[in-house]
Amino acid sequence: MMIIPTDKTFADKLQEKIDNLNKPKGSLGRLESLAKQIGLIQHTLTPKLEHPCHILFGADHGIEREGVSFSPREVTWQQMINYGLGGGGVNMFCRQHNFKLRVVDTGVDYDFDAEKHPHIIDRKIAHGTKNFLNEAAMSEEEYEQALKIGAEQVDECHKEGCNIISFGEMGIANTSPSSVWMSLFLDIDLERCVGAGSGLSARGIQHKYEVLKEAVTNFKKQIFQRNDLSSKQEITKLIIRYFGGFEMVAAIGAMLRAAELKMIILVDGFIMTACMLAASKIDANVMDYAVFGHCGDEGGHKMMLEEMGAEPLLHLGMRLGEGTGAICAYPIVQSAVNMINEMDNFAHANITKYF
Amino acid sequence: MMIIPTDKTFADKLQEKIDNLNKPKGSLGRLESLAKQIGLIQHTLTPKLEHPCHILFGADHGIEREGVSFSPREVTWQQMINYGLGGGGVNMFCRQHNFKLRVVDTGVDYDFDAEKHPHIIDRKIAHGTKNFLNEAAMSEEEYEQALKIGAEQVDECHKEGCNIISFGEMGIANTSPSSVWMSLFLDIDLERCVGAGSGLSARGIQHKYEVLKEAVTNFKKQIFQRNDLSSKQEITKLIIRYFGGFEMVAAIGAMLRAAELKMIILVDGFIMTACMLAASKIDANVMDYAVFGHCGDEGGHKMMLEEMGAEPLLHLGMRLGEGTGAICAYPIVQSAVNMINEMDNFAHANITKYF
Repeated sequence: MMIIPTDKTFADKLQEKIDNLNKPKGSLGRLESLAKQIGLIQHTLTPKLEHPCHILFGADHGIEREGVSFSPREVTWQQMINYGLGGGGVNMFCRQHNFKLRVVDTGVDYDFDAEKHPHIIDRKIAHGTKNFLNEAAMSEEEYEQALKIGAEQVDECHKEGCNIISFGEMGIANTSPSSVWMSLFLDIDLERCVGAGSGLSARGIQHKYEVLKEAVTNFKKQIFQRNDLSSKQEITKLIIRYFGGFEMVAAIGAMLRAAELKMIILVDGFIMTACMLAASKIDANVMDYAVFGHCGDEGGHKMMLEEMGAEPLLHLGMRLGEGTGAICAYPIVQSAVNMINEMDNFAHANITKYF
Repeated sequence: MMIIPTDKTFADKLQEKIDNLNKPKGSLGRLESLAKQIGLIQHTLTPKLEHPCHILFGADHGIEREGVSFSPREVTWQQMINYGLGGGGVNMFCRQHNFKLRVVDTGVDYDFDAEKHPHIIDRKIAHGTKNFLNEAAMSEEEYEQALKIGAEQVDECHKEGCNIISFGEMGIANTSPSSVWMSLFLDIDLERCVGAGSGLSARGIQHKYEVLKEAVTNFKKQIFQRNDLSSKQEITKLIIRYFGGFEMVAAIGAMLRAAELKMIILVDGFIMTACMLAASKIDANVMDYAVFGHCGDEGGHKMMLEEMGAEPLLHLGMRLGEGTGAICAYPIVQSAVNMINEMDNFAHANITKYF
C-alpha cells in the first residue's frame, strides 16, 4: 500500500458548494477550509464522519534516566492502568465525543496483569527503549515492529468502520525525543525546541537541553563515521529510531497507515505533532490527511506547527498529552461536516446572495 | 431582582479539587479556569449543564439607510425565515449540541405570516429603529420594552430547566451600533472600532466610519445641550438606546436576566460582545456569568475582549453572527464540566502525584 495524495482538482467544486451556503462568503472561517480538506480526503461533496477511534500508545524511554522529565518513570504504567480503568483525561474526552478508545502497551517498563487490566492491549516490544544519550533507542527490528503495531491497530479500527482517527501517547520523557526530532527535521536550534514538558523549572529545562545537546552531538559523530547512509530516507529512519520511543514510532506507523486508508487523522499536541512531522519525512503525502487539533504551550509547538503549515483548531493552553487536544477538537470537525451537509444554499432558501 | 456576584471565597475549594485531578497541575489549561468559573457560578464542586438554550433576536436598523452595510436590509427577514425553517448556520449548531432555539422578532422590517412561520416568535416593537445619524434609534419606552422582551424570553428558558444560555442576533447593519458602543464605553478611537461587517471593502469601511463619526458628533452635541443627565447610569442608558438595535437591547435585557438567575451566559462574537459590554455598564456583576465563546476577525473584537478581560474559548475566524460562535464553543464548556466531575484524582487512582 501507499499514500495517495488527495485530488486537488476537486477543490473547486467543494469551494463552490461552500460559497453557496447561505452565509457571507468565508464567514465560517476555519470551518470552511476544514470542510474543504475533509471533502478532499473523502473525495465527496457530502463527507461523513464514521465511528471515531482513538489509539493511545504507551512506552517508556531510556533517556528518562538522565533526569530530563519532571515526572517519574512509574507514572507511565500508573497512568496506563488509570486509562484502562476509565479515570483519565483521555477517557473523559472519548466518552464525551463517542470515541472508541484502544490503550496499547508498546513498551511500558512494567508487567501488567492481563486479568486485572483487560483493557490494556499487550504489544510490548521491550521494557522501554535504550538511553539515546549514548546509543540508539531502538534497533532496526524494533523500529519495524513498532511501525507495524501502529498500522495493525489502525487496521482494526478501519475494519470496524472508522474513517476518523486520533492518536495519543503516554511515555514519561517523550517531549525529549520530540524536541530532538523537531530540531533535526526542521533544522531549528535545539534550544528553541526544548520546553517544560509536564512541569520542569527553568533549571530543569536547562538540564534537559544540555542532555539532549550532548545526545545529538554523540549521534552526529556516529553518523559521520558511517558510510552506509546513502539516502535521505535512510537518515530519516535513523533519526526516528535513534531517538524515538516505541509509542512514538507506533504512532508514526499508525498515521501512515491511516493516510493509506484515506482516514482523517486528528493530530494532538507537541509529541503527536512531532510524530506527524517524522511521518511526513517518510511520506510527505500523509499531511493531506492531517487535521491539527490543538496548539499547546510547550516550547516550540507553535513554531513546529508553523513550519509544517498546520493550522490547529484549538488554542486552549492544554499540555496533558494522551491525545486529549485532538479529541477535544472533534466537535469542530463535526461542525465543519454539518455545515457542508446541512446548511441551506442561497437559491433554495430564497435569500439575496450577499457577496 | 438583582445580579448577585459569585462567591469568590469558594474559588480555593474549586482550585483544590482541580489540582488533585490526575494530571500535571494546570495541564488542561483553559478548561481548568473555565471549570472554576462554572463552579463559582453554580457554587458547587460538581457543576452541571442543563437544557442549553439559544435565543436569536432579530431586528432592523435605521442606520442601514446610510449604506453602512454590505448586505441589503431584506436579508434580515429572509434569514429570519430561514432560521424558522431550520436552514441556517445557527440551526445546524443547535442541532449538533442539542440547544433549544428560540427565534424572536423584536423589530424586523417585515410582516411575517404567523401561520407560515410559526417558529418566529412575534415580539415586534417597530419595523426597525430610527436612523441614529440624526436622532435616537429608539425611545425610552421602546428601550424598556426591548429589555423586558429579552428578560421574558430568558424566563421561559429558565422555567424549562435551562442553566446555560447563549444569544445571537440577526440585524443587517448591527456592527455599526456595536462599534459605536465599543468606542464610547471603552473610550477607544472610533476608527479602531470599525470593521468590514459582512464583507465591506476598504472604501466601504471608510464610508461606514465617516457615517458613524458624524452620528457620534451629532449625539455628543445633543448631550452637551442637555442638563438632565446627572448620573453615569443615565448616560449609559442614553448611549444604548440612541445607537442600539431592538435585538441588541433585548439581548442586553436577556443577559442581565440570565445573570440574575445565575445562568451561564455564552457570549458570541463582535455584536454580542458589545451587548455584554453595554450590559456590564448597567451592572458590572453580569461579567461573572459570561463565558466568551469566540474571537472573530471583525476589526476591534479582539481589542474589545482584551479591554473586558475576556478570554474567548475559540479563535476560528468566524464572523457569521446568529450566535454561532457561542454555540460552537459549547462542547469545550462540556469538557470543562466533565473534567471536574469525571476525572479521577491522584489518591484514588494510585498515581504518584507529579507536581
